[in-house]
Amino acid sequence: MAHKLVIIGSGPAGWTAAIYAARAQLDPVVYVGVPKQTPSIVLPGGQLMLTTEVENYPGFPNGVTGPEMMEMFQKQAERFGTRVVHADIASCDFGTPEKPRRPFVLKTDDGNGKSETIEAHAVIIATGAVANWIGLPNEMRLARQGGGVSACAVCDGALPAFRNQPLAVVGGGDTAMEEATYLTKFGSTVYIIHRRDSLRASKVMQQRFLSKPNAKVLWNKVVVDVLGEDHIEAVMLQDTVTKERSRLDVRGLFVAIGHTPATGFLQGTGLKFNDKGYVHLDHRHSATNIEGVFAAGDVADAEYRQAITAAGMGCQAALDAERWLGKMGMV
Amino acid sequence: MAHKLVIIGSGPAGWTAAIYAARAQLDPVVYVGVPKQTPSIVLPGGQLMLTTEVENYPGFPNGVTGPEMMEMFQKQAERFGTRVVHADIASCDFGTPEKPRRPFVLKTDDGNGKSETIEAHAVIIATGAVANWIGLPNEMRLARQGGGVSACAVCDGALPAFRNQPLAVVGGGDTAMEEATYLTKFGSTVYIIHRRDSLRASKVMQQRFLSKPNAKVLWNKVVVDVLGEDHIEAVMLQDTVTKERSRLDVRGLFVAIGHTPATGFLQGTGLKFNDKGYVHLDHRHSATNIEGVFAAGDVADAEYRQAITAAGMGCQAALDAERWLGKMGMV
Repeated sequence: MAHKLVIIGSGPAGWTAAIYAARAQLDPVVYVGVPKQTPSIVLPGGQLMLTTEVENYPGFPNGVTGPEMMEMFQKQAERFGTRVVHADIASCDFGTPEKPRRPFVLKTDDGNGKSETIEAHAVIIATGAVANWIGLPNEMRLARQGGGVSACAVCDGALPAFRNQPLAVVGGGDTAMEEATYLTKFGSTVYIIHRRDSLRASKVMQQRFLSKPNAKVLWNKVVVDVLGEDHIEAVMLQDTVTKERSRLDVRGLFVAIGHTPATGFLQGTGLKFNDKGYVHLDHRHSATNIEGVFAAGDVADAEYRQAITAAGMGCQAALDAERWLGKMGMV
Repeated sequence: MAHKLVIIGSGPAGWTAAIYAARAQLDPVVYVGVPKQTPSIVLPGGQLMLTTEVENYPGFPNGVTGPEMMEMFQKQAERFGTRVVHADIASCDFGTPEKPRRPFVLKTDDGNGKSETIEAHAVIIATGAVANWIGLPNEMRLARQGGGVSACAVCDGALPAFRNQPLAVVGGGDTAMEEATYLTKFGSTVYIIHRRDSLRASKVMQQRFLSKPNAKVLWNKVVVDVLGEDHIEAVMLQDTVTKERSRLDVRGLFVAIGHTPATGFLQGTGLKFNDKGYVHLDHRHSATNIEGVFAAGDVADAEYRQAITAAGMGCQAALDAERWLGKMGMV
C-alpha cells in the first residue's frame, strides 16, 4: 500500500514537516538517511549534528546543542505518530512533470546493500545541503568537536570563543566575503585565505570587506593542515606559487567554499533545479514543478540556511502537501 | 541618533528577527506594543499569548504554553542585547517609495497618551494579524482560558479535548471549509454555522467538506452566546430568518471569519499591500517595495500563519536587513 507522505531527510525541515504532517494525520514516514563520510560528513539529523552550540534557534534562551535539538524534534514528530526508517532514498520514479507517476515509486538503501521499493502519494524533499570542506583530517575532527572550525559564520561567528581573536576564512566568492565581513565585528583580525591572486566575489562585496580596518587577504595560499588539539590554534599554509609553507595563528577557521545540495538521488527524475543545483520552488510555496513533490529547507534554499528558516519551510511543505492530498481526494 | 534597526512587533517573527539582528550587532530595538481590547484582543507577544498549549513548535516534544514560549523568545533576544520598549509605533514616515526618507521617522505611543519621535535606518514590520472574532464576552473569555474556543484549527484541532466530540466552525469562506474539513478527522460531528443560505467558499472546497460523513451545515444561523464555565458546552444559535433560538451542544468552537493584518499604522506610508491588506513582499525575501523596510510573519503571510513559519520569516528579515544595512555602509 502506498504511503500518503514520505519525507526524505531528518534535519529541522524534515522533522518539522513530520510534526505538522503527523498532527494532520497524514501518517508520514521519515527516511532519516544513513551516515556517510565522503565527500562530506552526511549524518541523519543534518548539519546540526556537527554543531555543538545553537544560540539562534528561538525558544532556547540558554542555547542547546545541535544533536539535543534534533533529538527533541524527532521525539516530537514521533509523539504524533511519525514513523522513522533508518535508510536512504536511493532513487525516485516521479514519472514525468507532464504525466507524474501515481503513486510515486521510491527505492530505499539501508547502507548495507539492502534495498526496498516503496510507494508514496506525496513526497517532501528535505535532504538539505552539505557544506563543502577542504577535506583535511584535522579540519574535520575539529569541526565535529566544535573546536573552532565551522562552515557557517552566521551560526557560529558570535560565539564567545571567537571574540577578539584572529580568524580565517577560506574562499573567494560573495559568500566568503559576506562571512568574512560579518566576522570583522568579532575577530581581532580576519584573514581571507585565497588560492588565487584575485577574488571571484563581486567588487562591492570585496570593497565592503576590505574597508574594515581588521580585514586582510592572503593571496595564493591554500590550507594544508589545521593545528590544535581541542581547539584550533593555527593553520599551515602553502603558497601556490612558491610552494613555501608558513604558519598562521588563528582561533577560528571558517570554510566558505560553497554548499552542495543533496540532490544526487533526484537527477534524471524530471525535477527542476535552479542554476546552483537547488530544487526550484514555486516562489513562496514548497511546490516543485512536479505535482505532489514538495521541497523544504536547505535543499531548496541557498540563501538563509538557518534551522529556523528550514523548519518554517518544512511546516509550509507539510501544509502544502496536505492541501494537495486533500484536493486529490487522498486524505 | 537614529537606531540601526527597529523591529515592530513581539510575536515569533519579531523576537526571531531580534535574536538574529542582535547577534549580528545591529543593536535592534523591539517595540512590543501595548495591550488593546478592541476590536480584537491585541497583546504584546502576539496571538500565542492567547494559546494555552503549543504542540507544533519544533523543539518542545512535551508542548509549551504560548506565553512561556514568548517569554523564552524574549529572554533569548535580550541575552544578545536586544532593547525592549513597551510602546506601540503609531505612525511611520518612510518618505516615498521613489525617494525614501533617510533615516525613517517613527512616532511612538505608550498607550497613556505619551508619544516620542524616533529615527531608524531600517525597520522590520512584524506586527502580525489578529483573528476576527464574533465578539461575544463568553467567546472571548473561553478563548483566553483555552476553553475550547479557537481561531486556528491547524494549531488546536488535534488537541485531545476535541477527539470524538461535536465541533462547530463559524464562517463560510474557503478557510472555514478547510478548517472544518481538517476537523472532521477529529470530531464526531463537525457543524458549519453560516449566517446565509449559501457559502462564499469555492465549490471544490464545499464539496471536500460535504463529502465527509460527519460534516453538517447549519444554514441561516448566527451564534448569539457561548455556554460553559471552564470549557465550552454549547452554543446558542439564532435563525436569521425566523429569529428562533436553539441550543447546539459542542465541545469546540472554531471561529473562521478571517484575520486582519495589523497594518493600520502603515496606511498612507507608500507601503504596498496585497489585495487582502497584507504587506506585499518581494517573493521569497522579506524586502518590501520601500528599500530598508522589511516585513515578516503573519503581517505578510495570509497562508501559513504558524509560529515556526513566522519565526523563519523573522530570521530572513533580519538577515535581509543586515545585508541591506551593510550595502548602505551603515554597519
